[in-house]
Amino acid sequence: MALSATQSPKLVEVTFGDVEEAIGRLEGVAHRTPVLTSRTLDGLVGGIVLLKAENLQRGGAFKFRGAYNKINSLPADQRARGVVAYSSGNHAQAVALAARLHEVPAVIVMPTDAPASKVEATRGYGAEVVTYDRYTEDRVAVGERLAGERGGTLVPPYDDPKIIAGQGTVGVELIEDAGPLDLLVAPVGGGGLISGCSTAAAALSPRARIVGVEPEAGDDTRRSLEAGHRVGIEVPRTIADGLQGDIPGRLTFPIVQRLVERIVTVTDAQIVDAMVFLHERLKVVVEPSGAAGVAALLSGALKCEPQSRIGVILSGGNVGANRFAELIANSGRTVALSAPQTPKVGKVTR
Amino acid sequence: MALSATQSPKLVEVTFGDVEEAIGRLEGVAHRTPVLTSRTLDGLVGGIVLLKAENLQRGGAFKFRGAYNKINSLPADQRARGVVAYSSGNHAQAVALAARLHEVPAVIVMPTDAPASKVEATRGYGAEVVTYDRYTEDRVAVGERLAGERGGTLVPPYDDPKIIAGQGTVGVELIEDAGPLDLLVAPVGGGGLISGCSTAAAALSPRARIVGVEPEAGDDTRRSLEAGHRVGIEVPRTIADGLQGDIPGRLTFPIVQRLVERIVTVTDAQIVDAMVFLHERLKVVVEPSGAAGVAALLSGALKCEPQSRIGVILSGGNVGANRFAELIANSGRTVALSAPQTPKVGKVTR
Repeated sequence: MALSATQSPKLVEVTFGDVEEAIGRLEGVAHRTPVLTSRTLDGLVGGIVLLKAENLQRGGAFKFRGAYNKINSLPADQRARGVVAYSSGNHAQAVALAARLHEVPAVIVMPTDAPASKVEATRGYGAEVVTYDRYTEDRVAVGERLAGERGGTLVPPYDDPKIIAGQGTVGVELIEDAGPLDLLVAPVGGGGLISGCSTAAAALSPRARIVGVEPEAGDDTRRSLEAGHRVGIEVPRTIADGLQGDIPGRLTFPIVQRLVERIVTVTDAQIVDAMVFLHERLKVVVEPSGAAGVAALLSGALKCEPQSRIGVILSGGNVGANRFAELIANSGRTVALSAPQTPKVGKVTR
Repeated sequence: MALSATQSPKLVEVTFGDVEEAIGRLEGVAHRTPVLTSRTLDGLVGGIVLLKAENLQRGGAFKFRGAYNKINSLPADQRARGVVAYSSGNHAQAVALAARLHEVPAVIVMPTDAPASKVEATRGYGAEVVTYDRYTEDRVAVGERLAGERGGTLVPPYDDPKIIAGQGTVGVELIEDAGPLDLLVAPVGGGGLISGCSTAAAALSPRARIVGVEPEAGDDTRRSLEAGHRVGIEVPRTIADGLQGDIPGRLTFPIVQRLVERIVTVTDAQIVDAMVFLHERLKVVVEPSGAAGVAALLSGALKCEPQSRIGVILSGGNVGANRFAELIANSGRTVALSAPQTPKVGKVTR
């Protein structure tokens, strides 16, 4: 089933000035995450790969930037009435944390079957969690009803100029720290991250080509670019839970159309391989969605010019240790674990 | 069996000046690794925990510092004849990498049953690997024979003033970046890291108490401090393969006696819990030996004064993804993995 969304988007421009304003709002609040490099990765890819480690961001993902920028931009009286968001993932924790830092109440709408760890993490940031049945209720309707009842402001996950501008600060920092890029690679869910970072790159590194990465099963943006308009798909089955968007955003898609060269896709197995590479070589924990860019490069889905400078956004690191182990075991990689490293018991040789 | 080593050590002083010289030699060569923090960890521990991330060092562990400092200090003609080391762990890769950077040959003596991944990594740095049977051959004898045949210099894993001074640069950077400490916590294998860092702390943060951490099964240094002389034990069974020393070093032990307040021990299960915590909260990969300090704090084996400033060295990150999964599964933690995060397939709610 491919739904065609022909409704004309209400175009709201997001300018580089908006991103610069977000930089100011986030200063001293968001972490300036490091840019990681690996000679091994460079050798495998044939370029110079500059990894922006948003897995080390507060809340474990870039999402904190947009949420904080949005909440910080609200008029004080409106902000005091609190915020509402619907998300079972990183946006939930991001909004909860950003609300706490502003000392305003947050209500997060999560499905009844959301992982307990995510519900706990969101509550841990002080948010109220309201659950809904994802099979019988519409989360948008639940969110809007709650926002109405409580008088709070809905903080959307990506389709908002302040959210897009906040995510764009990732691109600003990457280019400031790594220098001009030939290629910028970002995962694409709803499109907030890539549209913000494209806006930044267009201003700061205008010769950089922008390529998005989607899971093979969730290529709504790739299809939409081909069709020339927003195309909806069934919610995709993929381990990359942050990239399970089923249709590009109304605001993000025109930006993607204008600035993104193309979308490449990666399989779940390629994503797990990239997660393992990042674990073993970079010593960092990256969640499936966050490893999509490295997966595109390592798998050859995205090829680069020799010695080109490639910025890649590691968008998040929220993957539990048990879930990580499970992904490795189920991925078709060597399920037979290496022979146990038995402690070296023998004669004393020292 | 507790062997008593009563042989009087040939005392070679390691001074802070030696550590400062090592700083100069390592500048622009070793990574200045970041100091990581976590509000959650601070809350659990009741102090301000400053994690020196040597898991992000070149070669994946602090060992590179000592090996490079040693090789760099050799007279040019001696260095040109190459180096020899015996190690199945991080020291092997450290010597191989440091030798390659000096463009001199390296021979690494490893047991025939060393994990293939470690042999490959060492060869990947350009070293020649010579294997020996750990049950019938003595690795020291093999190393000395090879050094004699090839005319190369033996690079010991810890019992050498240049090695100790090189490892001490970890402490210098930590204190420079984190400020004076109330407590410095380091894992103890042969004692190179803690004796170097103690020497640095004595000069730069003299009020800091120094506490070492050993695996419960491998408490040779704890026993030696109690006995007042070096006590040998059977090679311990522990997952912390970097801490399997069976007797403190001749050079390192007197420094430990002079500067280290005490040793606390942790179980393998506590180490795995710390690795999981570092994975899930800090998003970093830390090998068992490297997580010992955090294990001591999280388990309560080491308690701290409220609001005290605690420097903890994450000494290495060389643990493969499969091995990590295996450790989680075998640790007595929840073996039943969390319910699979089934992709969210349902009606389109956006």
